Amino acid sequence: MTSGTSNGTGAEALLGLDGLLTADQRAWRDRARAVASVIAETIDDDAETQKFRREYVGLLAEAGLIGMHLDGYGCAGADAISYGLACYELEAVDTAWRTFVSVQGSLAMSAIHHFGSEEQKQRWLPLMARGEALGCFALTEPDGGSDPGSMSTSARQAGDGTGWIIDGTKRWIGLASVADAAVVWARTPEGIRGFLVDTTDPGFSATDIPTKLALRASIQCDVVLESVRGELLPGTTGLGSALACLTEARYGIVWGVMGAARASLDEAIERATTREVFGAPIGSKQLVQQRLADAFVEYEKAMLLALHLGALKQAKTLTPEQVSVGKLNNVREAIGIAHAAREILAGDGVTTEFSVMRHLANLEAVRTYEGTDDIHTLVIGRALTGLSAF
Amino acid sequence: MTSGTSNGTGAEALLGLDGLLTADQRAWRDRARAVASVIAETIDDDAETQKFRREYVGLLAEAGLIGMHLDGYGCAGADAISYGLACYELEAVDTAWRTFVSVQGSLAMSAIHHFGSEEQKQRWLPLMARGEALGCFALTEPDGGSDPGSMSTSARQAGDGTGWIIDGTKRWIGLASVADAAVVWARTPEGIRGFLVDTTDPGFSATDIPTKLALRASIQCDVVLESVRGELLPGTTGLGSALACLTEARYGIVWGVMGAARASLDEAIERATTREVFGAPIGSKQLVQQRLADAFVEYEKAMLLALHLGALKQAKTLTPEQVSVGKLNNVREAIGIAHAAREILAGDGVTTEFSVMRHLANLEAVRTYEGTDDIHTLVIGRALTGLSAF
Amino acid sequence: MTSGTSNGTGAEALLGLDGLLTADQRAWRDRARAVASVIAETIDDDAETQKFRREYVGLLAEAGLIGMHLDGYGCAGADAISYGLACYELEAVDTAWRTFVSVQGSLAMSAIHHFGSEEQKQRWLPLMARGEALGCFALTEPDGGSDPGSMSTSARQAGDGTGWIIDGTKRWIGLASVADAAVVWARTPEGIRGFLVDTTDPGFSATDIPTKLALRASIQCDVVLESVRGELLPGTTGLGSALACLTEARYGIVWGVMGAARASLDEAIERATTREVFGAPIGSKQLVQQRLADAFVEYEKAMLLALHLGALKQAKTLTPEQVSVGKLNNVREAIGIAHAAREILAGDGVTTEFSVMRHLANLEAVRTYEGTDDIHTLVIGRALTGLSAF
Amino acid sequence: MTSGTSNGTGAEALLGLDGLLTADQRAWRDRARAVASVIAETIDDDAETQKFRREYVGLLAEAGLIGMHLDGYGCAGADAISYGLACYELEAVDTAWRTFVSVQGSLAMSAIHHFGSEEQKQRWLPLMARGEALGCFALTEPDGGSDPGSMSTSARQAGDGTGWIIDGTKRWIGLASVADAAVVWARTPEGIRGFLVDTTDPGFSATDIPTKLALRASIQCDVVLESVRGELLPGTTGLGSALACLTEARYGIVWGVMGAARASLDEAIERATTREVFGAPIGSKQLVQQRLADAFVEYEKAMLLALHLGALKQAKTLTPEQVSVGKLNNVREAIGIAHAAREILAGDGVTTEFSVMRHLANLEAVRTYEGTDDIHTLVIGRALTGLSAF
Repeated sequence: MTSGTSNGTGAEALLGLDGLLTADQRAWRDRARAVASVIAETIDDDAETQKFRREYVGLLAEAGLIGMHLDGYGCAGADAISYGLACYELEAVDTAWRTFVSVQGSLAMSAIHHFGSEEQKQRWLPLMARGEALGCFALTEPDGGSDPGSMSTSARQAGDGTGWIIDGTKRWIGLASVADAAVVWARTPEGIRGFLVDTTDPGFSATDIPTKLALRASIQCDVVLESVRGELLPGTTGLGSALACLTEARYGIVWGVMGAARASLDEAIERATTREVFGAPIGSKQLVQQRLADAFVEYEKAMLLALHLGALKQAKTLTPEQVSVGKLNNVREAIGIAHAAREILAGDGVTTEFSVMRHLANLEAVRTYEGTDDIHTLVIGRALTGLSAF
Repeated sequence: MTSGTSNGTGAEALLGLDGLLTADQRAWRDRARAVASVIAETIDDDAETQKFRREYVGLLAEAGLIGMHLDGYGCAGADAISYGLACYELEAVDTAWRTFVSVQGSLAMSAIHHFGSEEQKQRWLPLMARGEALGCFALTEPDGGSDPGSMSTSARQAGDGTGWIIDGTKRWIGLASVADAAVVWARTPEGIRGFLVDTTDPGFSATDIPTKLALRASIQCDVVLESVRGELLPGTTGLGSALACLTEARYGIVWGVMGAARASLDEAIERATTREVFGAPIGSKQLVQQRLADAFVEYEKAMLLALHLGALKQAKTLTPEQVSVGKLNNVREAIGIAHAAREILAGDGVTTEFSVMRHLANLEAVRTYEGTDDIHTLVIGRALTGLSAF
Repeated sequence: MTSGTSNGTGAEALLGLDGLLTADQRAWRDRARAVASVIAETIDDDAETQKFRREYVGLLAEAGLIGMHLDGYGCAGADAISYGLACYELEAVDTAWRTFVSVQGSLAMSAIHHFGSEEQKQRWLPLMARGEALGCFALTEPDGGSDPGSMSTSARQAGDGTGWIIDGTKRWIGLASVADAAVVWARTPEGIRGFLVDTTDPGFSATDIPTKLALRASIQCDVVLESVRGELLPGTTGLGSALACLTEARYGIVWGVMGAARASLDEAIERATTREVFGAPIGSKQLVQQRLADAFVEYEKAMLLALHLGALKQAKTLTPEQVSVGKLNNVREAIGIAHAAREILAGDGVTTEFSVMRHLANLEAVRTYEGTDDIHTLVIGRALTGLSAF
Repeated sequence: MTSGTSNGTGAEALLGLDGLLTADQRAWRDRARAVASVIAETIDDDAETQKFRREYVGLLAEAGLIGMHLDGYGCAGADAISYGLACYELEAVDTAWRTFVSVQGSLAMSAIHHFGSEEQKQRWLPLMARGEALGCFALTEPDGGSDPGSMSTSARQAGDGTGWIIDGTKRWIGLASVADAAVVWARTPEGIRGFLVDTTDPGFSATDIPTKLALRASIQCDVVLESVRGELLPGTTGLGSALACLTEARYGIVWGVMGAARASLDEAIERATTREVFGAPIGSKQLVQQRLADAFVEYEKAMLLALHLGALKQAKTLTPEQVSVGKLNNVREAIGIAHAAREILAGDGVTTEFSVMRHLANLEAVRTYEGTDDIHTLVIGRALTGLSAF
């Protein structure tokens, strides 16, 4: 089942989303939605069989969606809200493909774009924008999901002065087993730095985490680095450089999860107006209307928040704390909306006739990655009080 | 205790409110805040003794805040967001005085402005804008708070052809016992119409509802109309005319309650950073930061919603359903924010050392008036499904 | 991963569960737990591959768990709390196997036990108690999950006077494709009655609903009945007879879901005390303790509720309204507990390293079947007000 | 308005409370309810005027309710559930009077009973049980509500060897300004000890906290101790002795708040079945039934929890952690229930026509005193994890 449309009906219509967007933004949205509609045709099977369908990368590239918010080097240079809308439409089909765009565009490409040398940028960014090379971003480690500062992966300069040698292990690294290039973060004597690693290096191994019950149409890996050669990303100056990339990716999540929410809510609205029990559409019952109304209220607020953060990002004043508000809220509320939809869909809602169970499972993963609720809560708490409570 | 400031600290600073406002809007905000700071000096006593302090009406009028969103006839013609900000600042002190502005400006004056004859407007609006005449708005009846369509008050044309004679009872009519003019809604053979009533008419009696545990610095009355003379407001064409005024007033509530929320939240932030228990500020504890963070997230979203509705109102595209989203959400979340603040303030939070208990009580009244949660839920549900479930 | 133990640690220890049980009840609990520990060895694979593993039926029968709360005819005649504890232990592994016990024991066998002729009981109950015959219970129809009174399946007496002929369709019928006997509910000229159907009848066809994302280790079917022969269950007197069986099954759910909750909570407690981030066990953080504490509070209350209903059932005074309280509350809270656990487990919590994602998915199905939240809410509402609002 | 009855209707009837009680327990409940019905006649005025009505102490004493759970010395020696039921009935009228019983009986008398010398017990307990002497319990200090271990009040032995001299300040001390005897906790060279203080000592001064918006029919004070003479309570051995008294008092709260909840819920049920809007009782609407049903579910669970704790207390196995579960949950849920009732009562619900606004305000105070939510959360978290996170 596809993820619902928004032409004049459903949640977007009541929000009046179109009126809040420029023509250019709507065009980006429509391009993303067109790709999403292709992905939708196989997504249930892909999730069931845990298949990352490589051919969709080309479609995304053709539509200009990979690294679209970056300037130059074959990237489209779209504005922040357009990029958000692309995330929103892709996640309306499945988090896996919004995650792909995040890992490839907001993490790997963004790291190279911000911190790479001119030569590194020219070598990798056009290839990656065209989908001809895949990238991954290796920051998280098995023992420290929420505390990247405790990183144990280390890099030392090669004895021959030709580069760096990296050793360590990473976990939950999206795309690592299919990536051509890896952005790897490691501790050096001068602090944490980012490195470009060629994944054909014999010391690089990536193993799919096989037993996921979420994000099944995407790839996340355990990565082992044994004396792997890395090229320094010269602009990286510490953990803050890695965190800047996370802020980029989190911004995409703020939008993306609302796509899953919209798809769930639209399925529920459609069902509520067509399914009859006790001789009337279930949508004529107060308890069903309440679920829909509360879900819509949260959808509207979360979208306004995404738009607000987008405007700040476009104005280059967006802070990590503000992104934390968006990540915390929008994932939490997307889960709430999907739950409300699931209940309205009743028994059929646990089947693949509807997308909502798949979204619910995916959103659990999103709730954890790129900062748990607790981490973002404490980021916001620190901003409000000036006191750290991690 | 005053309601907190927002110059660079607290909830508004993290939201970045100033950056979202024009200079003109900030000026209106500051004028309202200045009046609010005067009211703050007596508000605890006024609430304790159930005193509506008439002299503050003059202050509000001087600052141009009465009927400020109306054009001409001595009204300031401010934009919708400026009006919202005034409501926000007044309710930061006490709901009573935002309610006054709503009743006088958004209900009584707005009804005359939209539906009155030129003569009626010229006679009443300048007087009311200057605070020299008070108005009330008599719609609700004892047996039908949520269902104004069931109205039993009736109007018939006087035998001498000189006007209308009204009979009925009304309840929860703000300002009625101190008002000079009443806008009264009554059933006629041609449908529901609005009438201007001179409250010195011997058939008009208003009795304060004496035993309120909320809104104690304001006046709400039971009203009895016995063969009272009324002048038709010629532009009124049915219940919809009354509901249009309610939509006006609800818009002010959307903003106002967030003032109470901000005041509560700022009190809590201040306390959290200064009160020490277990050898550290309580704001350094995760559980306290979580309360603050969640409260702030809701504050930010509610403010973005208010700004969104304000922009739509200014563009004259705001619908009643969209206002229902704001009324439902912002009152509900303001209560949640005030509760979170109350818990952080601990024992002292139940005293008048802080404003939060007063706000909590007031907000319960606001939750009910101008449409309960249930009514707004069903309005939104109908908009989403096309099905009525009242 | 197995479902956690309760010998002296975890949620049960703080509740003091053992002290609330008799030796006999604890023995039943232990027997069920032993079977569950065997099922646990394959359950992840079974869920992944959607496999109902028939051989576990024999294990359940050997332990006396099938139809255990019924008297005579090879059934164990255990008390209501012992039966609840068996449901609790089985669902701690997976809802699929508690569901099996519910369908076979509380629905099919219970219907025959309460409403069958002596001959029917002697023929079927011992076979079913030994697991040599499987039964199903065909009540729900595609268009009326929550409204069994709208049933369109019909039964008419055969022209030869030898029995009944049934036509109709049913949906969400557990075990139907592997069952030997089906209890089918159908409309007759005298009202709704229950019938025993031999599933080898050529007019009986059952098709697995293939695309479930919950209850994957169990079977639910679409059933088509085309001129199927049925034997009247002579004691059935209307829809109430079917609903009495549902009340039986719901009672088992009240207990069962708390097993899934306990398993999730124990996984989270174990993780919280062993997983270190920021240099300390995550369980030493206030936000993690809060999740655990709130989850435990709900666990304790839900268990007390289950015990209370068990005592009423044993005393034969349990009403359907009281069971509705348990079904509504315990499923809702089990989901909340599992969510809290999922968040504590972070990234690893979406893998099969832990059972919680499987439980979360299963509980969504349980939330809908045997009466949605809305249905039970309105049952309770009617009991409180005397007014029907369906 | 009185607090509702439970003879066959309302929340207690659906719970089946009577069936869970012995005849003796029901008799205690009825005695408490009879006193409560007298208090109900003036409670609205008392709350409005902040009046502690001393004459009700005699009524409570006559009914045997003061120190009723203590043995000997003129105390009734009732079982734990009977004592809980008395708290429940008194708080159904107003928290002020349940608080009186807690302060006098569970704190002051209990401290003397557990830790006093035989002479101290004989001197004070019979007088206090008869209501002829009032007691208070001075533990909390202005700077350390949640952390009594940081106590700065100190006691030193008098130079003449005749007793102890105490200096310090206390806050939120119930009844202090009307008490005859104060149990004062102070730091000595050997640790924290409890002392009996005669409040006529010129160094003892107690000032009512004047500006409360909760518990207005009761008295809480700031206390200053300047070289006050104290008699050691010889059995006190440290802070643990004081905390043991708090555990006693918290047990009473677990029951008491459910009385406020029941009163609120019964008011709402009564209103829902009699108030008509849109041509039908509001209780026939799904959204109203949902509020009632959810409130009832929480009421039932909280009552089962209270009964469970009562049985443990009677068996002398009740632990402070288990009491924390009850305090945290029952206050939180009582507030939720009262809020639900408030919304159903709509506009009239903010007047003294109903008791719910008074209950809501009182419960905010109860939420803080005797341990905030956060404190009890961390007590439970520590019990589950073995880790302290204060």
